[in-house]
Amino acid sequence: MKHTPIRQVLSSETSLPDICVMGWVRTRRTGRDVSFLEINDGSCLASLQVVVDAGLPFHGDVARITTGSGLAVTGDLIPSPASGQAFELKAREIHVFQKAPESYPLQKKRHSDEFLRSIAHIRPRTNKYGAMFRIRSELAFATHHYYREKGFHFLHAPILTGSDCEGAGELFSVVTEEKGQEFFGRPAHLSVSGQLSAEMFALALGRVYTFGPTFRAENSHTSRHAAEFWMVEPEMAFADLGDAMDLAEEYLKFLVVWLRENGREDLELFTRFVDKDLAGVLECIQKERFARVSYTEAVDMLLHSGKTFEFPVAWGKDLQSEHERFLAESLFRKPVILYDYPKEIKPFYMRLNDDGKTVAAMDLLVPRIGELMGGSQREEREDVLYERMTAQGLSAEKYGWYLESRRWGSVPHAGFGMGFERLLMLVTGVGNIRDVIPFPRTPGNIDF
Amino acid sequence: MKHTPIRQVLSSETSLPDICVMGWVRTRRTGRDVSFLEINDGSCLASLQVVVDAGLPFHGDVARITTGSGLAVTGDLIPSPASGQAFELKAREIHVFQKAPESYPLQKKRHSDEFLRSIAHIRPRTNKYGAMFRIRSELAFATHHYYREKGFHFLHAPILTGSDCEGAGELFSVVTEEKGQEFFGRPAHLSVSGQLSAEMFALALGRVYTFGPTFRAENSHTSRHAAEFWMVEPEMAFADLGDAMDLAEEYLKFLVVWLRENGREDLELFTRFVDKDLAGVLECIQKERFARVSYTEAVDMLLHSGKTFEFPVAWGKDLQSEHERFLAESLFRKPVILYDYPKEIKPFYMRLNDDGKTVAAMDLLVPRIGELMGGSQREEREDVLYERMTAQGLSAEKYGWYLESRRWGSVPHAGFGMGFERLLMLVTGVGNIRDVIPFPRTPGNIDF
Repeated sequence: MKHTPIRQVLSSETSLPDICVMGWVRTRRTGRDVSFLEINDGSCLASLQVVVDAGLPFHGDVARITTGSGLAVTGDLIPSPASGQAFELKAREIHVFQKAPESYPLQKKRHSDEFLRSIAHIRPRTNKYGAMFRIRSELAFATHHYYREKGFHFLHAPILTGSDCEGAGELFSVVTEEKGQEFFGRPAHLSVSGQLSAEMFALALGRVYTFGPTFRAENSHTSRHAAEFWMVEPEMAFADLGDAMDLAEEYLKFLVVWLRENGREDLELFTRFVDKDLAGVLECIQKERFARVSYTEAVDMLLHSGKTFEFPVAWGKDLQSEHERFLAESLFRKPVILYDYPKEIKPFYMRLNDDGKTVAAMDLLVPRIGELMGGSQREEREDVLYERMTAQGLSAEKYGWYLESRRWGSVPHAGFGMGFERLLMLVTGVGNIRDVIPFPRTPGNIDF
Repeated sequence: MKHTPIRQVLSSETSLPDICVMGWVRTRRTGRDVSFLEINDGSCLASLQVVVDAGLPFHGDVARITTGSGLAVTGDLIPSPASGQAFELKAREIHVFQKAPESYPLQKKRHSDEFLRSIAHIRPRTNKYGAMFRIRSELAFATHHYYREKGFHFLHAPILTGSDCEGAGELFSVVTEEKGQEFFGRPAHLSVSGQLSAEMFALALGRVYTFGPTFRAENSHTSRHAAEFWMVEPEMAFADLGDAMDLAEEYLKFLVVWLRENGREDLELFTRFVDKDLAGVLECIQKERFARVSYTEAVDMLLHSGKTFEFPVAWGKDLQSEHERFLAESLFRKPVILYDYPKEIKPFYMRLNDDGKTVAAMDLLVPRIGELMGGSQREEREDVLYERMTAQGLSAEKYGWYLESRRWGSVPHAGFGMGFERLLMLVTGVGNIRDVIPFPRTPGNIDF
C-alpha cells in the first residue's frame, strides 16, 4: 500500500505533488470553507496538517471524521500559510479505513500516566509514549552501533538457566504442564544476568556484550522495580577495572550524544513537559569528566557531609539509593564512579584486591537514578575464585564449567551491566519504570 | 590494558613498530634458532604469527608454552618471509598470564560437533564456532540496521505473558517459590511470539519489529528444534500481504549481501569446510527473484510432480518440511513464497480472503531449511476477527485488548516472523540448531 511516511513528508524542503499519506486523526477542525485534520502515523512526533476544501465532494464525510480514525489522504504538499509549519497537505482524495467510535479513549485532553498504564496497548499512540518508545528504539540501536564499532560481538546469552549468577536473589522457576517430570532434567530458572555466559565468550572472542531480558521475582511495589527488564552487559578479555570504568563513561556519553543528535524532537518533549532540568543533566553527562573515588573515600565524604540519612552510613555496609544520589547530585554534581568495595557486600566473581579486604568492583552513580551501571574486574585466579565461591556457599561442582575458564588460558577480564530502563528514566526524566517499558510486568500485572 | 586487536593488526598495510597484542596460543613450533606462536584473540578468524628468536632471554619459557595459554606479546610488526601472511610480529617481550595445562581440551586436532557441544563454554575458541558466533553477531546487527533504515522502530515485546499467540502450543509456565500464590495474580507463561504486542505498536508507531527470545516446551529431539530461540518479527501498519512478501524477500537478500561483505572471512570457513554448495545457495538468494505461488498452485504442483512423499499431499493439509524443501530445492530451485493458505490450518489472526476458504498468509521456503519465515496480513475487521477467535476456541474476553485494536482506528496491517537460528543454519550450512546457539536448550539440556 504505497504511501510516504509523515517523517519524510515533513522533512521535505519543497512542494511535493501527488503524494499519499496514511495515518490516524489526532484532531479535526471543521469550518464553513475548509476543514483541517492533524494526521499522525507514528513515524515521528509531529503530525501533518491536511486541508480539505469545503467544495470537495467528500467534505461532508470529513466533517464527521473522529479522533483516532485511520485514513489515507492523497493530494499535494504545498507551502502552508499557517505559522508553525512549512507545508501542508491539500487533500484531493480521502479514504477512511475505519471511523473510530466516540468511545475512543484518547480524546484531546491530558491523561494521567496511571490511566494510560491501564491501556498500555493504546498509549503508544499518545505524543509522550510515542516519543518514549521511539527513544527506546533509538538507544537500543545506539548500543549495538557503539559496541560493534568498538570491536565487540553481540552475544545472545541464554534466558533459561540452571544457575543463578548473583548466588542468591529471587528467581522465577520455569516448569511445564507434565507434572513430576522436569523438562530439562533439573530445575530451570529465568536468567538474572548474562554475565557468566558473557565471560565464557569474552575468553574466546575477546570482547562481547549481551543485550537481553532479565528477570527478578522480587515482590517490590516501587517505581524502580519491574519483574522483567533489559540489561546491557559488555565483557572484555585483557581488561582491568580501569578499562571497565573508561568504557562505562565513554558508552554513557556516546548514548547521550547520539540521542541529542538522532532523537532531538522526541527528546524535546521530555525537556519541555516532563523535566525542566533534563537538558542540564544531559549536558553535564556529555561534557563533564566523571568523578572517580574509592568506596572508602566516598564513605568518608558521606560521614563528614553533615547530612542526616534515613539509613546510617558505615564502612562495610552497602550504600543506599539516598547515599548514591547524594554523592552524584549534591557532593559531585555529576556522575561518579565508585570503586574498590568491601568484598563482603559484592558477589564472589569480583577480583580480590591485594589488601584482602576489597574487590575490584565499580558502580556508576548518576543524578536522580543512583546506580546506573555496576561491574568489576573478574577474579581470574582459579584458587582465589574457588575460595570465594565456597565461602559464599556456592557449589563448586555446579559451577565447574565456570572454574574451568580459569584453568584453561585464564586472563584478566572485566565488564559491567547497565539496566536499560534506568538509562531511559535518566535521559527522559520519567520517574516510573512502568512508563519506559512497552508492557511492564510487576507483581499482579501481566495484562496484555 | 593497552593492546591492539589482532583484526586491526592483520589489516595493517605497513610495518608497525612497538605494538602489544594479547591473545591465546593456538599452536607453537619450537626450533633451534627460532620459535613460532600462532596467537588468536577472537577479534577475527585469522591468527597472528609471533616469531621468537632463540637468543631472547625468555626463549626457553616460550618453548614450554602450551596450546590455550593466554599471553601478551610486545614487539614490532614486520614483513613476513613466510607465504600466506604479509606480516608477522617479532617478539621483544612476552608475558604469560596463565599457562594452560595439558588437559586443555582443544588440542590441535579435529573435534566432533557432539564433543564440542559438551564443552559449549569452550567451543567458541575453535575456528568454526568463533566464526559462527561472529556471524551470529553480524547478522543481528544487520537486522537492526536494515529495519532502522526502513523506518521501523525496535520493540522489546514482553517475554512473560498471560496470553498465547498461536492459540495453542506447548508453553513453559513461570512460577515463584511461594506456593499457592501467583506472582502475577494469574498463570504466566514464556512468550512464543511477540506478534500481538508488535501489532499494538505498529498501530501506533507505524512500523515496528521485535527481536527477542521465544520459547516452546516441545519435547522434540530433532536437529531443528530448541526450547529457546530468537525471532525477528516486523509488523507494518498500512500494509497488505504483498507488502509483507516484498519485505521478506528484500530483508533476506539484504542479510546475505551484508554477510558476504562484512563477514567474508568467517563465511569462507563454512563454504570451504562445512558445505561446498553454500556459495551457490547464497548467490541464488541474492540474485534470483523469489518465486511466488499460491498454496493451491503449490499443492497442484506437488500432486503432479510424480514424487512420492512420506506424508501425503492434499489441499487443506499442512505442508511438511519434505514438501517445502522439494518445492524450493527441486521444483523452483530457489526461494519460494507460498500464499493464501486454507484458513483451517492457520491461526485466527490471519485475514480471511474473499473466497471465504483461504487466509492472506505467506510462508517463505528456502532450500535445505524449508520454512524460514511465516507471516500474514492481519484480520483488521473486528466482527470477522471475533468470529474466527471464537471458532478457534479462544476467549474473546481474555483477548479483549486485541479486539479493541480493531475498534479504535483499525487499519490494514501485515507482518511476519523469522526464526533467527534457521537463518544461521541457512547461511552457514550447519545442520543442527544446537550448533548455532551459544548455549542451546533442548529437552534434558540446560548445562552452563
